Parts: sequence; structure tokens; C-alpha cells
Amino acid sequence: MRLQLCTWPEIETYLARSTGIIVPIGSTEQHGPNGLIGTDAICPEVIAYAVGERTETLVAPTLSIGMAQHHLAFPGSLSLRPATLIAVVRDVVQSLAVHGFRHVYFFNGHGGNVATVQAAFAEIHADSSFGGEASPLRLKLANWYMGRRVQRLSRELFADSEGHHATPSEISLTWHAYPEQARPMTLTPRIAPTAAFGDARDYRRRFPDGRIGSDPSLASIEAGTRLFEASVEDTIEDYRAFLEQD
Amino acid sequence: MRLQLCTWPEIETYLARSTGIIVPIGSTEQHGPNGLIGTDAICPEVIAYAVGERTETLVAPTLSIGMAQHHLAFPGSLSLRPATLIAVVRDVVQSLAVHGFRHVYFFNGHGGNVATVQAAFAEIHADSSFGGEASPLRLKLANWYMGRRVQRLSRELFADSEGHHATPSEISLTWHAYPEQARPMTLTPRIAPTAAFGDARDYRRRFPDGRIGSDPSLASIEAGTRLFEASVEDTIEDYRAFLEQD
Amino acid sequence: MRLQLCTWPEIETYLARSTGIIVPIGSTEQHGPNGLIGTDAICPEVIAYAVGERTETLVAPTLSIGMAQHHLAFPGSLSLRPATLIAVVRDVVQSLAVHGFRHVYFFNGHGGNVATVQAAFAEIHADSSFGGEASPLRLKLANWYMGRRVQRLSRELFADSEGHHATPSEISLTWHAYPEQARPMTLTPRIAPTAAFGDARDYRRRFPDGRIGSDPSLASIEAGTRLFEASVEDTIEDYRAFLEQD
Amino acid sequence: MRLQLCTWPEIETYLARSTGIIVPIGSTEQHGPNGLIGTDAICPEVIAYAVGERTETLVAPTLSIGMAQHHLAFPGSLSLRPATLIAVVRDVVQSLAVHGFRHVYFFNGHGGNVATVQAAFAEIHADSSFGGEASPLRLKLANWYMGRRVQRLSRELFADSEGHHATPSEISLTWHAYPEQARPMTLTPRIAPTAAFGDARDYRRRFPDGRIGSDPSLASIEAGTRLFEASVEDTIEDYRAFLEQD
Amino acid sequence: MRLQLCTWPEIETYLARSTGIIVPIGSTEQHGPNGLIGTDAICPEVIAYAVGERTETLVAPTLSIGMAQHHLAFPGSLSLRPATLIAVVRDVVQSLAVHGFRHVYFFNGHGGNVATVQAAFAEIHADSSFGGEASPLRLKLANWYMGRRVQRLSRELFADSEGHHATPSEISLTWHAYPEQARPMTLTPRIAPTAAFGDARDYRRRFPDGRIGSDPSLASIEAGTRLFEASVEDTIEDYRAFLEQD
Amino acid sequence: MRLQLCTWPEIETYLARSTGIIVPIGSTEQHGPNGLIGTDAICPEVIAYAVGERTETLVAPTLSIGMAQHHLAFPGSLSLRPATLIAVVRDVVQSLAVHGFRHVYFFNGHGGNVATVQAAFAEIHADSSFGGEASPLRLKLANWYMGRRVQRLSRELFADSEGHHATPSEISLTWHAYPEQARPMTLTPRIAPTAAFGDARDYRRRFPDGRIGSDPSLASIEAGTRLFEASVEDTIEDYRAFLEQD
Repeated sequence: MRLQLCTWPEIETYLARSTGIIVPIGSTEQHGPNGLIGTDAICPEVIAYAVGERTETLVAPTLSIGMAQHHLAFPGSLSLRPATLIAVVRDVVQSLAVHGFRHVYFFNGHGGNVATVQAAFAEIHADSSFGGEASPLRLKLANWYMGRRVQRLSRELFADSEGHHATPSEISLTWHAYPEQARPMTLTPRIAPTAAFGDARDYRRRFPDGRIGSDPSLASIEAGTRLFEASVEDTIEDYRAFLEQD
Repeated sequence: MRLQLCTWPEIETYLARSTGIIVPIGSTEQHGPNGLIGTDAICPEVIAYAVGERTETLVAPTLSIGMAQHHLAFPGSLSLRPATLIAVVRDVVQSLAVHGFRHVYFFNGHGGNVATVQAAFAEIHADSSFGGEASPLRLKLANWYMGRRVQRLSRELFADSEGHHATPSEISLTWHAYPEQARPMTLTPRIAPTAAFGDARDYRRRFPDGRIGSDPSLASIEAGTRLFEASVEDTIEDYRAFLEQD
Repeated sequence: MRLQLCTWPEIETYLARSTGIIVPIGSTEQHGPNGLIGTDAICPEVIAYAVGERTETLVAPTLSIGMAQHHLAFPGSLSLRPATLIAVVRDVVQSLAVHGFRHVYFFNGHGGNVATVQAAFAEIHADSSFGGEASPLRLKLANWYMGRRVQRLSRELFADSEGHHATPSEISLTWHAYPEQARPMTLTPRIAPTAAFGDARDYRRRFPDGRIGSDPSLASIEAGTRLFEASVEDTIEDYRAFLEQD
Repeated sequence: MRLQLCTWPEIETYLARSTGIIVPIGSTEQHGPNGLIGTDAICPEVIAYAVGERTETLVAPTLSIGMAQHHLAFPGSLSLRPATLIAVVRDVVQSLAVHGFRHVYFFNGHGGNVATVQAAFAEIHADSSFGGEASPLRLKLANWYMGRRVQRLSRELFADSEGHHATPSEISLTWHAYPEQARPMTLTPRIAPTAAFGDARDYRRRFPDGRIGSDPSLASIEAGTRLFEASVEDTIEDYRAFLEQD
Repeated sequence: MRLQLCTWPEIETYLARSTGIIVPIGSTEQHGPNGLIGTDAICPEVIAYAVGERTETLVAPTLSIGMAQHHLAFPGSLSLRPATLIAVVRDVVQSLAVHGFRHVYFFNGHGGNVATVQAAFAEIHADSSFGGEASPLRLKLANWYMGRRVQRLSRELFADSEGHHATPSEISLTWHAYPEQARPMTLTPRIAPTAAFGDARDYRRRFPDGRIGSDPSLASIEAGTRLFEASVEDTIEDYRAFLEQD
Repeated sequence: MRLQLCTWPEIETYLARSTGIIVPIGSTEQHGPNGLIGTDAICPEVIAYAVGERTETLVAPTLSIGMAQHHLAFPGSLSLRPATLIAVVRDVVQSLAVHGFRHVYFFNGHGGNVATVQAAFAEIHADSSFGGEASPLRLKLANWYMGRRVQRLSRELFADSEGHHATPSEISLTWHAYPEQARPMTLTPRIAPTAAFGDARDYRRRFPDGRIGSDPSLASIEAGTRLFEASVEDTIEDYRAFLEQD
């Protein structure tokens, strides 16, 4: 159930049986020489849609632009500043709260979003904690690539070639979603370097083709399909547990 | 050309031949008893994708959540505050500017976004006008429903039943985009009332089913297809003129 | 009735019979070679004062500095950033709301303020729409130059020489208000160019003497007096209709 | 020389001989039972205009609304929040700096503005101090009632009846400026109480008619005229010394 | 009683007998050639701790970094922007208010904080004054160096050598607190210059060794001990009077 | 070397040999029935001071108040909102950057700070990444309780009784630092519950005495001394590696 494809009376009906919603959140940023710029938004979106269909759960429109300032030295990367993303998350949650949603499950595809979204949750709770009305909101940020089944499968498929950015797992998943966009490619070095980094220029200096520690030449549609199924299962399980939080 | 489905080296190549990009911007808000909540995002998105394909123009991910605070008394409506939307537009434009984009064409589906996006443009230019470096940016907000051909066709098809919110034109266009989501329906009153309004509760009091001045029972997939073609033509013309602005 | 020239007990008395107030809002910015920098503040102020006297309506002090960042390449222009003007409008409205004012009529002299003030209204309503207490506020932005009588008279007097900035209509009105400040002058070219523009430097490049599309050499005190009377009548009519909004 | 009554080429000429400008800043707030709500804006405005004429100094439009949140329990009082006033002062100074003004002399009529305007100055200087370009700006806040001659005269005229808010000195000065607005009145108690206070409701509880420690029944037009002359002299002296600051 | 060294049940007990707390606030900034960078935080901290012990008053952790942008041209100086310090003060006060504290006594060691903290108080009260719930908060900013006994003693000890920054009084007090950190030193010129200043670079240009108008070569541990005792007495008296404010 | 106990010329000298500094950051919040409210600030402070002495590294004043909104239902807890803490971290880093510091090592004692401080780092880098000057800054957040030696020792000492808040490790460390503040106590239940939580009231509902998953009755001064030494070693190692980052 995509929120965009419902009418408001249908949402009124939905709220009578559930106070939960999934909000996919990603990023629009370089993913190495052959990874799609939309990778981090596409991954949580396709999984969320499947979870939504299989469990009759409402799925909000994907927040496609995340906190990716460190990728801005690569053409096509878009970023919100942390303060902006905090405001976006706050406004979305507060909109949902007006309607009676209580369990808001942000389903994330981008590691760079995690700290900022957690800070946003704290901002939202602070309105209550600093003396406002008690809030019934339950907020969770889950990463599609952190589920139990996905982690096991990634290790099995790619081991030390998985790396941290432009990973073969996420590239595979996007090819599962958009098979016509698969761009198999041999990369040099095979595995990209790993390091701490500062601003966007420092990032590009250290990782000239954009990857961190990964070998996405191992990506395949078939791996993507397996990862997709694993993540859908992980997410159904995790979302159901989240809904039970009182 | 969807930015999300490109790699960064492909954007580098694109920038060598064009400094223009289309950014669809919409809203997620009630559209009356039978209109999709995603109407205002779906409309500019499908037109922008077609323009992108026919003219080899890059299209950014759709900004699906707009400034719709006045719709928040209807379940499912999401809104950013004006200050948040200003920050989002600013960050997107500044991200694009880092890469060398100069002509950023926001293609809009929601009247409620217009003032805020214009204020955002002024914020962006102000950084330069208040003494910063001269900015080469050219920014435009165009509404898909304001093109010459679309306006003529809407009048011809729906005349005084077009109204201001949940119009038969926009409902038709979403049914063209998602035919399986068509929800033909007879409405009472046939044409919704029109009035000035204050906050979200005042809006709902004046417009109990969400429509303003419109009769979306006239919507049809066929009308949607004609409006789609009209808007694509309008937009190609307008975007090309915009690109020529030095 | 100028708020500045009342005592607080007098306002207490006023509130017992009316919840309406007029807030003139303008700008301080170049108006071409012979137009006063205060034009956009002077025009709504003198009309508002006359409306205030003829209808016993309270008039707040003029907000003389508006959103005029695009004029900052011309000496003497002052501007607030959009975010600042939004905050000013919000604070003024919230101050008035504390006292029980419900109908706040911003009477404007500067096209560049419109988007920002509309965004400010949305910010104010959002406090309620996002779940706060229902707000009884009714807010309107009216432009002195958009009334029915004024528009007809401008067309009659100046036709295609009216233009968009430093218009003969507004220059005439300031000369009606300050006859000793009339600076009749022949200009070259007679009618200034028209174009889209970016930041302040781009504005000055395109419009070297500050005018857009206008020929203020046609301005006269006599025309100003006629425009003044037309606008006072337009505004009394419009303000009365606004007050009736429940 | 009022900025509002100049053209931009005239300001260009002015800047060739002076980098100084006076910005009157006041407040719109209750001034006791017989004091004008505009008192704190009127006082610095009339003095600044006189200084401007006698010394050929440019005077910006008066910032009529200040930081007066503690007066909001009295009808008609308007206030900006401190953060808003800081933004207004910053934007005005930055606008002036674009044109080459270096000495900006805020001429104030409201004690409640002082801390906030000083904080605004620090915000402006911080842009440079935190690593930006060195700033040539010299900023001063002067209060019309703090000059040497005015202080001596107030003591001579009103001694212990001067008090802290709605003082006979400021009331007298507004009557000098607007003789038709004089509202002589006997007050009970003759001298209002003095105390520390918290928010606006606490203020009204402690000072039921709005005055603090003053007896404005002593106000007179004649006293106002003497105070006006004293302050004009004080201010000319102080402004000239300020201009000499390198 | 240091808040940091209590448990929450102990604070619960404290609140049953008192609603007051002392919050030391200082700065981390250059204090001339031989003054400690922590001077302005150390001074109010040691006095507050003594007052806390002698009167069984709770003392919050010291806010060690203040508004000191004008000192940033000297290595080691840290500053918050005014907007940041306003937010810090607001959050601390609102945290305390949640628990039932009503009398919050900021005890200050840095003149540069005064305007900003006063603006912060106004921001806090504004939440109530603009229409929120009535606030019982009483807020005071007291400077350790402004007490009656301290002022008398400083004049007696240092007369015209006291000056305005890096004064012998504050240097002495830090040596009383940290005798091993005393750095007696002869300075040239003996008394530093005095002047108005703009940004940090302008400050350093005018005061090359950081002092303003002072001769800290007169500082001594013995003077510090006498100033400490004087200030503790001043502060106990002032805090007790503050607590009685209803 | 404590920054507060240095003079500015000494910092000038220090910068000639090192661009690194340690900034302890903690929180002021309830730590269960017998834990000190200052626990999270005291722990990193005492370790940082020891590291500073043993390695001649500069240590900034402790940021004692962190992001702890979820603890506000327990008396004595103080919190900054995330946006405030982001501003504080940004201002501190930018102050340090003005002087030439390049390696800023935030040494943290509070898990609730982590997301917000990471978001702050992204805000700081964003100024460069969005098109500003390239930044040489290297920023790291390290938690005292996450070092290799500390983790091993905590497991050895407390195993499953360590828990997540008011842990025996942190309580022990504060008793090492302030032996006179040790408050040995038997608690019921011995091990506190663990759960996800929402706002401050929800936190208190789930964890009535403030602890999460821990048994601080196991705390001892002796354990604290061992943890202190372990953390000092961990931190010296980690800080040195950080300094080598180019």
C-alpha cells in the first residue's frame, strides 16, 4: 500500500486498524564507477514496497535525498545539510502524528543518514521531554543491510569484498530492481581503499573512484534477488516486533 | 535520463554538454474523495520523465513532499513547514551548483509550493546579493498545469468544473499515469465550494471532502492522456527557452 | 487611527468593536533614476492612513524594509532575507493575536514581498495545522496596485509604459504624498527593458538604471492624486469584505 | 536627509563623501495610561531627522518594532522575538555594508532593545571573527535619553519622578513631536512602583497601568522641546566622534 | 552542593525545600600575557562553589564557553556565537523548569556574555508572553565583579589600573583559586590602552597583548583571597534577595 | 595541559608543535539511585586530564551538558536540544580552526551524544563540501568506554551486569575520581530492565529508578582505578593514531 496511491478516506480506514507506517529514506549520491546514483534510495524503496504489499502496511513516499555532503565532490551527488534533514524528518513525523500514526518506521539505505535521523528523533521527543504534552510516538530507524539474513548472505556472497560504500550487495539489489541498468565492470584496484575522511574533497582524494573498501565488480542480478528476499523477510520480522512496542 | 539511474561518470559527461536539470516537485496531500494523495507529485514526475527522455535532459528525483500544512486535517496528508522546504530547495540547488549545474528548472504540481519555492530562490540569490561571490545560477519554477496548451485543453474539457483543488485535470493525469488507480465516482455537491481559508481545521470546515471548486467526477484516463501530451509539449518549449537564458 | 498615536487603553476600547487591523508593508530599494528609495513603503502607508481615517480602522506602523535582495547592487537599497521577513511577519501577527486581533490585513507596496509574506502566513497557520490549538486568525496580503480601480486607471494613464519596477503609477503616488520630492526627468531608453534575472548583480547588468519595463518620465503629481483616490476606494471595499470573513 | 526620500544616484554621491548613516530604532508598546504606543520609535526618529538635516547625514527608515515581549499583556504592544530583531539588525547592516557604508549608528529609544542589538552586533562581527574576511564595520548603539545634556535636563525637570518606563521625559518629547496628541492626565499612584519582573503577565501584575517608577503627569510640550534640543546637540556630538573611529 | 556530585533522588529532596539554583557562566578567552584563558570561568565557579557550600544551595556545572568572538584573534580563545549561547541558556533554563526550579541565578564572569544572556532571558519569557502558558520563572544574571564589596575593594586595591579586560582583580582571583598558576610579570605599557573596537582582528590591532585599560602586574594571591571573600559575601546577599522574589 | 590554565602566548607556542586538542564532552543527567548526575562528564574529564599530562596534549574545558532529553523526567537532569549541541560543537571547532588546530578529538562519556556530535561534524564539513574553501579539519568522536582495554576489563569485572545506563563501570570510575562521593547501595531489582523507549516520560515509565540493564551495586573505587588506567592507555593509543591522520 503506497500512500501516494491511496485516497484520504482509505487512510482513515487504515488508521482504524493500524497506527504503523514505513517511511523509506535513502540518498542520491555517487556509488562508484558502475553504481547508480539512486542506489541508497532504490534499495529501501523496493524492499519497503514488497513489505507493504505482503503485510498490508502503508508505505510513505521515499525520502530520496539524504545527508551525503561527503559525496559532493562527485558529479550528480545531492545532499541535505544535517539541519535540513532533521527538519524534514521532524515535519514528516509531526504530519503523521496529527493523523494518529504512532509507529513510524524509517527504513534506510544510507549509512550517512543514521546519525542525523537519530538526532531528528531526539529533537522530536525533546518537544515532549522539555515539558510539552506526553508523546505516544514510537520511532525507529532500520537499515535494510543490517538485518540478520541480509548480513549472513552478504558475508556468504562477498566476504571481504563487501566493503563500506558502493558495496556489491547494494549494487546487486539495484540491478535486481532495474535489471536494464546493470553495468558489469572490472575495477582497478579490485578492492577500494578504506580510511577515515573529512570533507568532500578529502573524500575524493582518498577514494578517487568513489568506492570505499568494496569490489562491486562482484555484483549480479541473481545476488540482488537473493538479497531482496532476505531483506524483505528481515524487515517483516523487525517491523512486526516494532509495532508491538506499546 | 533519471539522475537516480545514472552513474557519476555519466553525469560528468552530461555536464560537458548541458548545465540544465529538471527537478520535479510535488506534494503528498488529500485530493478529495477519489483523488490520489500523491497526485501533485505524480503529475510533474511523469511529465518530467517524458521531457527528459525526449530531450535527453537530466531529471532529479522528485521532491514528493511539499508545503501542504492546510491539508493536514485530512488523514494521509504530509507537509513540510515553509522554512523546511526553503532549506530543502536551497540544499538541492547548492548541491547542483557544486557540480556546475547553472539552470535548475523546478517543475511543480502543487500551487501551495509556489510562494515557498520563490522565497527559497530569493534565499539562494541573497547569499550572493548580500556581498558573496556573484552567482551564475538561473532558477525557474514552472507549474505543469499553467502551460499554454494545458490551460486551453483544461478549459475545453472541463470549463467551470475545473476548480482549484482536486481538479478533473490533475485527477485525469494521475489516471493516465496509473490506470489501475482510476476511481470514477459521483460526488455531492457536483462542484465543490470556493472560499478563502485559514489553518487546516478551517480548511476542512469549509471543504468537508477536500475539494475546492472542482468536479473530479469528470476525470477520465483519456483526458489524462491528452493533458499529458499537451504538458510535455508545453514543458519542452518552456525548458528550452529557459536554457537559453544567459 | 495610527497605532503609534494611540494609548493602550484606547486599543482596549477599539478591540471591543473590531478585531481588524491594517499593517502597511513596503520596501526600501532603488526605484530608478528619479524614483524615491522609499517608494514601496510610502505608497501603502499613505493609502492605509487614509483608509484608517475614513473607516476608523487601526493602522500599524509600516514595515518599511522588505525582501529586496535583488536590488542590493544599487546604493541605498536595504533588504531582509526571506527567513528574516518571515520571522518579522510571524512575530507581528502573534503579537496582535495575543491582544485578540483576528483579521490582519497586510497592505503591500512591493511585488518582491508577496511570496515571502505568503510563506510567512503558512508558517503561522502551520503552528495550528501541525497539531496546535485551532487558530481563529484570518490573514490577507493585498497590493495597493492590484485593486480594480487602480488597475483600470494605470492602464488608462500609462498603458504599455507602466512596466514592472519604478512604474509611473508608483512614482506618481509618491509625488502626490511628497510633492516637494517630485523629480521629473527624461529617461533613455524611454521604456526600460524586461527580462528574467538572478541575483543582484545580474539584475543590475540587465537593468542598468534600475527600472524594469517602465517609463517613469510620465509620472505626475496629478496622476498620483487620482491613483491615491482610486486605491483608497479599492482598499476600503476589499478590507470590508475581508473583515466579514468568519 | 531621509534615505526613503533619496534616489539611488543620490546615495551614490553621498557615499563619496561619507560612510556613515543613522538608523533610528524604537518599539511599539504601551507607555502607560496617557503615553503613545509609538513613543519609543517617535523619540529617536524626530531627533535623528533633525540631526540628519543639520549635519547632512543620511537617516534610514525607523525600525519601529523592537524587542518588547514583556509589554505584550497590554493591548496594542507589538514585539519581535530577540532572534528576529537580531536577524533584522544583521540584514540591515549587511545591506548597508554592500554599498560601502562603514559607520552604522543605531539611535535607540527603547531600553529593552539594548541587549538584543548588542547581541546582533556580536553576530555580525562573528562572521569575520570566526575566520571570514576582516570587516571594516563600526557599529554603535546610542540611546537618545542617555546623552549628557538630556540626562542633566531630565534630572533638573523631573528628578525622582522620571522613573524607568513611560517617563515624563519621553512622553514630553512625543508631545513636542505631535502636540495634538498630548493627553495630560493625573495618575494614581502619582509615582508608579519599581521591581524586577518576569514574563508579560508578571509585568502587568506588578505594574497594572504599565508605568515603572515614573510620573508622566509631569510631562509637557515645553519640556519636550527642551529635551529635543538637548538630545539633538548630544547626538550631533556623539555621532561626529563615532565617525572619526577608524 | 554541586549538581554534578548529587544523585537524582537528592535533587528531588532539595526541590522540596528550595526552587533556586546557581549557574556559573564564564568564558574561555585570552586574558593578556599572564592571565589564564579560563579566568572568566574560574572566577564565578570558585565563588559559586563557596556560596553553595555556605548556604546549601545547588550549583550547576559551569558554562565555561561564552560569547567571546572579539577575542578569537588570540590563540586558545573559544567562543559561541550569540545565537548558540542563547540556545544553551534557554535549554538549561527549560531543563530546570521541567523539574520545578523557579529561581535561576546565572553567576557570570565575562562582560561579553551580558547582552547575550539578557537576550536569552527575553527569548525564554517570550514563549509565555506571546501567548503560551504563564511562566513562574525568575531569571537573574549577576556579575561577580559588580557586587558592592568587590567594587569597593577593587577600587581600593587597584584604582585606575583596574581597567576593563585582564584586570588585576580577576587575575588575582584566579591565583587565589590556582596559586600554582600565578605568573607575576611586568608589562609594557604598564596600563593597556582603551578604545571601542569592531571584530576580532580590529580588537587585536588595538590591544596587541590582549589587555584593555588594565595593569595585571599588580595582581597577587593575597588580593585574590580578599576579593574572593568579598564576592562570596556580596553573592550570598544578592542570591538571598533574589530567592525572595515571588 | 588544561587550556583554561594556559595563557594565550603559551597556546601560540603549543601550536608550533601540535595541531591537536582533546575536548571532553559529557552530560549532566540522572545515573540511577546512587550514580552521580555528573557521571558522564566526570569520566571523560579525568581521563582526558591524565592523557593531557602524560602526553603534553592540550585539553579544552569539558562540555558538561550534552543531549539528554530522554532523562528529563528525573530531577537534576539537564539537556541541550540536538540543534543546540550541534551549534556548540560547530562553534568550538570553528574557534579552534581559527587558531590553526586541525585535529580535534572529542572525548565522550555519554552514548546519547554520539548521533548529535556526528551530525555536528557533518554540518562542519558541509560548509566546505557545499562549495566553500577546502577544510583541513580532522574530527573524531571517541567514547572512553569503547576502548579495547576498557571493554575487556568491563566484561571481566561485570559481565552481564554492565548494562547500558548507570553501569557499574562508569559509577566505579566516578568513585575513583571522587572517592568521597561513593554511595554503595543494594538495588532492587538487582539488574535493571532493558527496552526501547520514546520521550522522557516513557523512559521513566520503563526504567523507574533510571538505570537500564545495569547493576551498579557492583561498583567500587578499586574497579574504577583499574578502568581509569585502562582507558588512559586506550586513549593515548587512539589519540596518537588520530594525530597521524593527514
